Parts: sequence; structure tokens; C-alpha cells
Amino acid sequence: MVEAANLAKKLELFTEHWSPKIVSEYNGNEVMVVKFQGAYAWHKHDETDDFFYVLKGKMRLETEQGNVDMGPGDLYVVPKGVMHRPVADEEVHVMLIEPRGEPNSGDPATAATKVWI
Amino acid sequence: MVEAANLAKKLELFTEHWSPKIVSEYNGNEVMVVKFQGAYAWHKHDETDDFFYVLKGKMRLETEQGNVDMGPGDLYVVPKGVMHRPVADEEVHVMLIEPRGEPNSGDPATAATKVWI
Repeated sequence: MVEAANLAKKLELFTEHWSPKIVSEYNGNEVMVVKFQGAYAWHKHDETDDFFYVLKGKMRLETEQGNVDMGPGDLYVVPKGVMHRPVADEEVHVMLIEPRGEPNSGDPATAATKVWI
Repeated sequence: MVEAANLAKKLELFTEHWSPKIVSEYNGNEVMVVKFQGAYAWHKHDETDDFFYVLKGKMRLETEQGNVDMGPGDLYVVPKGVMHRPVADEEVHVMLIEPRGEPNSGDPATAATKVWI
């Protein structure tokens, strides 16, 4: 059987913040959903762009190139090598895409463990 | 200045069907929005998966592995090499991701010209 992944339903399955869950794959990239609130650590990905698409709530992507205010339906791809951190005053739900195995923090030592949901 | 792409606003900028518009790029892939209604031709992409995320309306992805009924917030990635065609009884708005230059029909002879919006 083939079935779509409904992202809102996937997001009902967990409550923790800063813990991306894999819902699909595309050409060796992991498509994930994540919930977060507050400010993440500044970091960069030297070898990959970083895909953010806001599903619910508001966030700000602070980057060394400027800040990006984002709400539902907003998409922004942080170019590889660019320092950035996501910040949200209230809980936000986001679709992320990163290459399989890429540490979300840019550093394996501090990265979240990504699991399928 | 850095700015997010709001997909709903991008979709207000055109009316034609089956004509994907590029809104961003991720690691050499084009992130697109498209409107369509009716049935597309059966095709496959031998070298790439095909990413579909429904933004508005309903569609059915008919594939040789089964049919996938999709509504807003539903994500499905057609594996490479799998025959498929999207079908929509009424107009649907979809986010697509394909490698830069990939013909949306699987064949350069019948592919739509993708332009930035």
C-alpha cells in the first residue's frame, strides 16, 4: 500500500522540541517535521543548504546575511556555509529537509538523533 | 536583504495549469509551486524521486504501486523509476521538488519550461 504522510497528524505524535522526526525521503535527503520554541545555537552546514518551511506558528531565521521573519506557508533555504539560528517566541511547527545523516546542529557532537515517525 | 517565499502569494501570481514555477533552490534541486486540474500523462523519472506536497485542494497520485489520495498537508515522494501521474478533479496547488533541469514530464520533448516567479 502506498500512503501520503499528513504532516499535521505526524506532528500530533510527539511533543518534544528541537527533535526532528523523519516522515519521508527524497534522493538521499530526509524530509522532517519539528516543533520548537526559543532560540537554537548559531551554526552552519558547510556542505549543504538548509530547507525551512513553516507549517504552523511564527519563527525568525536569524542569519549572518540578515533576519527572515516567517509564518505559515513561508519557505526559506539557508545557503550552505551561512551561519544561522532559528528563533521562535511561541511554539512553531516546521518542515525541514537535510541530507540523510546531516547533524541538525552542524556538529555530530551536539546533534539531535533523527528517527522516523 | 533576505526574505522568505510565501507560497500562497507566489500562487496568486499565475493562473495556468501544469506550469511549475520555481520559488527557491536546495542543493541543486528546484523548489516549485504548480496549479493543475485534470490528469497528467503517465511518466517516470529514471534518475530522481519526485516530491509532492499539497498546499490547497485535493489530488490523487496514481502510481504503478497504487493510488495515493492527497489533501492539504499531505506529502508523498514517488520513488525514482516508478510510473505515475497526478490527477485532480478540481484545481489543486502543490509544492514540487525536482533536480534542476529535470523535465517534469520525464521527457525533455514534452516538459514544461520552468521559470522563477
